[in-house]
Amino acid sequence: MKKLLFVYALLFGAFLIYLINFQSREVNTNLEGKPKGLQGTIDEKYVMVTFQVGIEYWKNVLKGFEDGAQALNVSVEYRGATNYDVNEQITVLEQVIARKPSGIAISAIHPNALNVTINKAIDAGIPVVLFDSDAPDSKAYSFLGTNNFNAGATAAHEMADMIKNRGKIAVITLPNQQNHIDRANGFKETIEKQYPDIEVVAVKDGKGNQLVSGQVVSDLLKEHPDLNGIFATEANGGVGVGEALINLRKDKQVRIVSFDTDKQTLDMVKDGTIDATIAQGTWNMGYWSLQYLFHLQHDLIRSQGGPYTSGNQLLPRMDTGITVVTRENVEKYYAK
Amino acid sequence: MKKLLFVYALLFGAFLIYLINFQSREVNTNLEGKPKGLQGTIDEKYVMVTFQVGIEYWKNVLKGFEDGAQALNVSVEYRGATNYDVNEQITVLEQVIARKPSGIAISAIHPNALNVTINKAIDAGIPVVLFDSDAPDSKAYSFLGTNNFNAGATAAHEMADMIKNRGKIAVITLPNQQNHIDRANGFKETIEKQYPDIEVVAVKDGKGNQLVSGQVVSDLLKEHPDLNGIFATEANGGVGVGEALINLRKDKQVRIVSFDTDKQTLDMVKDGTIDATIAQGTWNMGYWSLQYLFHLQHDLIRSQGGPYTSGNQLLPRMDTGITVVTRENVEKYYAK
Repeated sequence: MKKLLFVYALLFGAFLIYLINFQSREVNTNLEGKPKGLQGTIDEKYVMVTFQVGIEYWKNVLKGFEDGAQALNVSVEYRGATNYDVNEQITVLEQVIARKPSGIAISAIHPNALNVTINKAIDAGIPVVLFDSDAPDSKAYSFLGTNNFNAGATAAHEMADMIKNRGKIAVITLPNQQNHIDRANGFKETIEKQYPDIEVVAVKDGKGNQLVSGQVVSDLLKEHPDLNGIFATEANGGVGVGEALINLRKDKQVRIVSFDTDKQTLDMVKDGTIDATIAQGTWNMGYWSLQYLFHLQHDLIRSQGGPYTSGNQLLPRMDTGITVVTRENVEKYYAK
Repeated sequence: MKKLLFVYALLFGAFLIYLINFQSREVNTNLEGKPKGLQGTIDEKYVMVTFQVGIEYWKNVLKGFEDGAQALNVSVEYRGATNYDVNEQITVLEQVIARKPSGIAISAIHPNALNVTINKAIDAGIPVVLFDSDAPDSKAYSFLGTNNFNAGATAAHEMADMIKNRGKIAVITLPNQQNHIDRANGFKETIEKQYPDIEVVAVKDGKGNQLVSGQVVSDLLKEHPDLNGIFATEANGGVGVGEALINLRKDKQVRIVSFDTDKQTLDMVKDGTIDATIAQGTWNMGYWSLQYLFHLQHDLIRSQGGPYTSGNQLLPRMDTGITVVTRENVEKYYAK
């Protein structure tokens, strides 16, 4: 009888151990012992590195990155330079690399200045993707961001629609930054090719500054008092133009298409000063950056240049899309 | 003593039931009872519907779809019309919808003919994405495929490089199919805009047929005996052109850039008859189609038009990328 009791106790104990063991595994596995589904572990950390932390624009990107991490059961960290300074971003990036994270998503402050540091991460076996601002000559695996030429083309169609395919328009841009050059070119080429009765009378530098952009518009209106529309390739330009037009009482005459969705811009869309603004797919940048890094880290998809088998290469570029914001849908774009 | 034994047996039984129950759950869960990571269940079925089953082109797309399903722990099924026939694809699609799958990825045989059926699936709550061939006016959530205009532009740069930015070239295409129109336009516009010393002397219909395309080239060479290059927007055209040039002993004079990677084309790339061919990102079409459908089914990303919160909208278009295949890398493209 005592022997039987001993056997029962042994069985009971063995099951208890098995059960505890079964529950404590961090990654659930299927019968072959492989993780089921796409899931990482909480100590798997992905880092997002931006420049100029704290600006509203990154919020949605980080939200996407976090949503991706939650979906895949991994951790994220958000790092960035506090100033708009190349060397500071390099320092931050060096610190991040030293801690050997599972992957790094970077928005590059300059198209070339970060290449050496990015390549160092890649050589150390850390997957890197770029988002929003590319470093095309680095070894990073992919770029996820807006196709700015196409975004400019969309702005052109919006503008043409508003001024009924006829009239004089101008562009306020940053002529030394690639994304703004692309937006301006996409706009200009689309107008020239598809709208023969619209003339682009000027492409001016607004210096990313509200006051400068406002002054540029005042000068432009002296030369072209019958101007019908302005495309601002960045948000400060759009707001500056809007304020100048109100002061000049020309806001009913001149249509504005702007870029991005900061609060000032959205307020001006709401009150009708800005007629439309282009919202970038910021959440998509963050979400798919995390997905790509996870796929690289877990060797689920091969990177460009790696051994090619059945064509499962990582896309070197992902267009994260845009949407047009007007008075009709502006409420949805305010930060919650 | 008997009472004690009874208690032990009861405990033993309870643990056994608990254990079986624990193991039999199809989805592993974390402490809050929610699935950990991105994982579905094996009875969650995603269906891929093509036209003209059995052609080599779909193989890699299906491989991507299957790889995606394996990664996410769900099931797939492959269906398609056996003939190149609109009504047959509609019938197949109707049958698939009737079985209420978790999602459907469709390559549309015609840009409009499937709209009613696709919309029926959407209205029944079944997520649908298009891949390879779009149905842009349907309610499908996204299109994943080649940006054909850009692919044509890439072909233009390859061609220009080969003929050292100077000479006469022609295009053999299918002038009634949108993807081929886009490829031809991307090619033609890029040459015209960026290569002033290259002239596109003709754009001809090869009818997707090797013999017809060969005849077209023979005729072309009578008119333009100094022709330097031909861009064929589809694989049969490329092979037909290659054979015609060999017969005419003009294969050393005329460069060929073709499209896709069927065995005949790859063989001609290998022996130098075709100088380059454009490989589409077929694996990406399948893999990301499955990912998108899964995200829609599990409400992880909002579809266009749905309630907008933090910008997490599904991309309405994903460019699945291309790569250029030449003699140098052709071996990697043969089906394994």
